[in-house]
Parts: sequence; structure tokens; C-alpha cells
Amino acid sequence: MKMLINVAETVVADALRGMAAAHPELVVDVENRLVVRRDAPVAGKVALVSGGGSGHEPLHGGFVGPGMLDAACPGEVFTSPVPDQMVRAAAAVDSGAGVLFIVKNYTGDVLNFRMATELAEDEGVTVASVLVDDDVAVTDSTFTAGRRGTGATLFVEKIAGAAAEEGAPLERVEAIARRVVGASRSFGVALAACTTPAKGSPTFDLPSGQLELGVGIHGEPGRERRAMMTSREIAEVAVDAVLDDLQPELPVLVLVNGAGATPLLELYGFAAEVHRRLADREVAVARTLVGDYVTSLDMAGASVTLCQVDEDLLRLWDAPVQTAGLRWGR
Amino acid sequence: MKMLINVAETVVADALRGMAAAHPELVVDVENRLVVRRDAPVAGKVALVSGGGSGHEPLHGGFVGPGMLDAACPGEVFTSPVPDQMVRAAAAVDSGAGVLFIVKNYTGDVLNFRMATELAEDEGVTVASVLVDDDVAVTDSTFTAGRRGTGATLFVEKIAGAAAEEGAPLERVEAIARRVVGASRSFGVALAACTTPAKGSPTFDLPSGQLELGVGIHGEPGRERRAMMTSREIAEVAVDAVLDDLQPELPVLVLVNGAGATPLLELYGFAAEVHRRLADREVAVARTLVGDYVTSLDMAGASVTLCQVDEDLLRLWDAPVQTAGLRWGR
Repeated sequence: MKMLINVAETVVADALRGMAAAHPELVVDVENRLVVRRDAPVAGKVALVSGGGSGHEPLHGGFVGPGMLDAACPGEVFTSPVPDQMVRAAAAVDSGAGVLFIVKNYTGDVLNFRMATELAEDEGVTVASVLVDDDVAVTDSTFTAGRRGTGATLFVEKIAGAAAEEGAPLERVEAIARRVVGASRSFGVALAACTTPAKGSPTFDLPSGQLELGVGIHGEPGRERRAMMTSREIAEVAVDAVLDDLQPELPVLVLVNGAGATPLLELYGFAAEVHRRLADREVAVARTLVGDYVTSLDMAGASVTLCQVDEDLLRLWDAPVQTAGLRWGR
Repeated sequence: MKMLINVAETVVADALRGMAAAHPELVVDVENRLVVRRDAPVAGKVALVSGGGSGHEPLHGGFVGPGMLDAACPGEVFTSPVPDQMVRAAAAVDSGAGVLFIVKNYTGDVLNFRMATELAEDEGVTVASVLVDDDVAVTDSTFTAGRRGTGATLFVEKIAGAAAEEGAPLERVEAIARRVVGASRSFGVALAACTTPAKGSPTFDLPSGQLELGVGIHGEPGRERRAMMTSREIAEVAVDAVLDDLQPELPVLVLVNGAGATPLLELYGFAAEVHRRLADREVAVARTLVGDYVTSLDMAGASVTLCQVDEDLLRLWDAPVQTAGLRWGR
């Protein structure tokens, strides 16, 4: 397997050097593995910190900036960051208004963020945490107990980030983050496995002519394998899986997310089929985002995340954001 | 080869349906294959129209919006759009201030935009054209005579688009576009070939353990094949190839562009090496953009485009832009 890298051991550090070079609006601490808003701590503002294994770019470092995260802690590829990173991040961004940890539900992340919470509080930082567990495909998988955290992380970081930017206190930012988690569900499919730099060969074996329905973002097993399906059939399975669990009564935000190696041309076609199925199921769409936002290195495939939103959450979604991976103004 | 599609024949139409669903701020005419600014024609503004084969997303449809293109004409995958599309686009966006066609140097595009120019002028639209030919790898290749047009197209569309948005007349917008073409050079590498939906198998054969230096965005042959190299070595070859041709005396805009299937984690690491080589060569960097902007379906690889900029061009680069694929405010 060919990769555009120097050696596997320096992939994350090399990427952080590149982020530092490309984004002078961020403070990138390559040695300590931190990506921080340059203007942090922002006086009076609740700070948002997230992190997780690398390989899901632009998540999380690409979502650091005004209107979203204050800091991100990248781990090694598909490996949790360590508590030291999180504590250092919390100290760097806390203005005194407190810090919200946004944690994807994987065992290592959960344990390390929990330990970091204790350590940061020992240092006088008030910390709240929210656990993102939106993937309806399976409960209990390779990397976690319970439902995995995937695409909803983007919705949580964006919407809670907007609330914090507006000056909401920690309890409200935390409550909004929990509402977004409760309102969001995801389902992913893989057409081809990803290859980690350390392993150098595909992380799982997917025979030609088959796809994996319900795959995790590290290539964890999903619900089943089937003979290759059309975009329309895949959209029906994914949307139905999400809706059967979520049963939304409000309009939804739609994230059609690429796994990494699926062309944007295909993702837009898939988005058309996702919209078609949502129309069939009489679900109104508020906003749609199509692209690579929570990737799995070079996996081929896509995921669908829906988040039902009232006017308050939709307003926060629409609020300005200025990050490397997601940006808009109003 | 597995793809997230329905059938090969409807890939472009399906993607346009998805763009229409995801982007209510655009007018997407699926039948006539047009993507148009919703507020077009903008009174008094010179209109920018581009287009080319599909498969290079987000180019060009993803660059339609305030501050960049007024309309895009997507062809079939790796196939020029037809003159009818271009004429229809010109008529839809012309405010009376004239239209600039931005044409990548491929034989089909050149011929069809030339014919469209004549037809549009017959209908009373004033049309100017600029030809983008930035790829230093080879002259005369599979799809074209002369140098191929690649990543510099983004710089031309953004910078000329900003000038038009400011109200510059057609001659000035055209002159700025030509300055950007003259100031830009690109070089690309492939680690793995892409697969078109129609063919269903890789468009060229790249043995394991080898890469193609100087590849074109349709997989056209480059300068040579070599045994796999490190990111640092590849960056040296690419940057040196560009600098040997461009010999910039001003700071440069840097585009580190993904071919489609190369993870953003790798692209950022590659960007670090591109910056290192530019520093070695004592070239100052003004801005850096890292990501998938001018892709080749699911090709693995990357390209480097440099554009030397004076203060005027840099100001236009920094001007606000609101498109699906590129957006920022100031």
C-alpha cells in the first residue's frame, strides 16, 4: 500500500507541522499534540475541547476556531489522545467560565477524558463532559461498549460551539450539547477498507463485490455484508436505520459524510438518494452538508447523520463559524 | 471496482440532483447541466463562467457563488461540456457587463468554449476568454496540446471572481485572470490511478511500489515513473519542477491539492514538506490551502500549485467568497 508519508511513526507530527504551516490563525503545538484557537482563552467564554484518534480529519483539529472548538487533542492514528493533552488543552483555553469536553464513545477516549476531567479539576478548571454515541448500527463493537460516536460529533461541536460563542454559561452549553446528541443518529457503509500507516494493509477484509452495512469509523464490523447495492438502495438502508431509531418530529440537519476515498461526485449523487428517501418517509430537511468531515483515512464509503432541530438549534447551526474544515458567515 | 452510484450513465445527473438538494443558494439545472448563482445576473457585474469534465469536484460547480463563478457547465466525466451549455450559462448570467470564460487547456474544452464564444456573441453577449495552462510536467499529452490546465484554475476563478465582485470592468477582470495564469504553475503525482464509472477499471496501470511523477488530472502520463518515494522526496520534486519554471520573485499562494483518495492527514504532512522545500529555496509563502479542490475521482496522490502574488492579487485572494467548495469572510 502506497502512502504520501515519510514514515508511519511521524504521520501525526508531520500533519500537525502542515497544519501549523497552513493555518497561522491556529496555535499548533506539534510536540504536545494540541491545536488551539490563537485568541484563546476568550474572556468570559465557555471553552470547548475535543479530541480522539487521528485519521478522521478534518475532525477535530479542523474544527478549531471561532464558533466551534477552542482546542483539539489529536491522538495517534485510531488511538485515543492521552489525558496530559486534554489537561493541557483545558488549561490553555479556560477563561474561568469552564470547559466542555466533547467525547466520542470509544473506550480509550472515555477513560482518558474521565481521567483528564479529574486532573483538570484538581487544577481548578470547571469541566463538564458530553458523550457522543450516535451510530445506530451496532451496540458494543471493537473499540467500544455501547453505541459508537461518529458524524454527530460535528453537529455537537458546531451547535454547542455557537452557543458558547454567544456567551452561554457552561450548564447551558452542556445542555445544548446533550440535546444535540439525543437528537442525532448515524449509519455508515464501507465499500472498501482503510489502511493505517502502521499496519500498511487494509484493516479488514471486504471481498470484491460486497459492502459492509453499518461499518464503524475505524472499520469496525457493522450489521451485515451484502452483495454490492446501488446508491439508492444504500441510501434507503442508511436512512431507514437512522429513522427507525430517531423517529424525528422536527426538520433534520443532514450530513452526507464521505469516508475518505469516495469522490465528491459520488457523494452528491448519494445525497440526492438520501433526500429522496427522506421525502418518501415524510421527513423535512432543514440543512444539508455533503463532504468529507469525519473520515476513516482512505476508506471508501459514506455515512448519513441526521439531527432533528428546533428553531433554536437551527439558529445555532446557522451561526458564523471560522475553522479550517467548516466555515461560513451570515 | 465498487462505486457509490446507481448506474454509470446517470452519475453526473445524480450528482447535480444532490447539489440542488444540498445547496438552495444555487440554481442547479439538471436537465441542461448548469450550476448558476441564484442572484444572477448581478446588475453591473462582469460574469465568470467556467466548466469542464466532471470528476474534478468541487471544481467547477462547487466554486459558483458570490466572489467566484457565476455559472459552471459540468460535462460528462472527464469529457468537455458542450457549447450549448456554455451559451445558456452566458445568457443566464450576463448583466450586460460581459462574460469571462475560464477554460482549462484541454482540446475539447478549448474547441467548445471557442464555438460558444461565437454563438454567445451572436446573441449579443460580450465574451472574453482566458486559457489556464499551468501544469509544467509535460507539453502535449493525451487530452491536449500544450500545457494542461489544473490547480491554477482555482486561483484564476477566485482572484478574477473577486475583481468582478468589486465591479471591475471586463477588460480588467480578463487582465487579472491572465496575470494569475502567468503567475501560476503546477505539478502533480499519482500513487494510484482513478477509475471512471464508465470504464469501471483503473484508467492507467501503475505497478505496486511505483508512483507517477507529473501525472495529469485525468491520469495522463507524466514525466516518469519511479520506485515509491517519501513525502519529503516527492515534495522536493514537485516544488523544484514548479520553481524551475516559475522562478517567483514575489511571495506565493500555495495549493496542496488532493487527487481524491489521499487522506487529509497525509495531505497536511505533504504540505509541511512543501513548505520545507519552499523555505530551502528561499521562496516566501503568502497563503496556503490544503485539501481536495481539483480532484481526479478516486486517484491517490496530490499536486502542488504556486501562484506568485503582489499586494493587489493577494488582496483579491483574501476577499470574501461564498461557495460550496471555498468560503470565507473578512
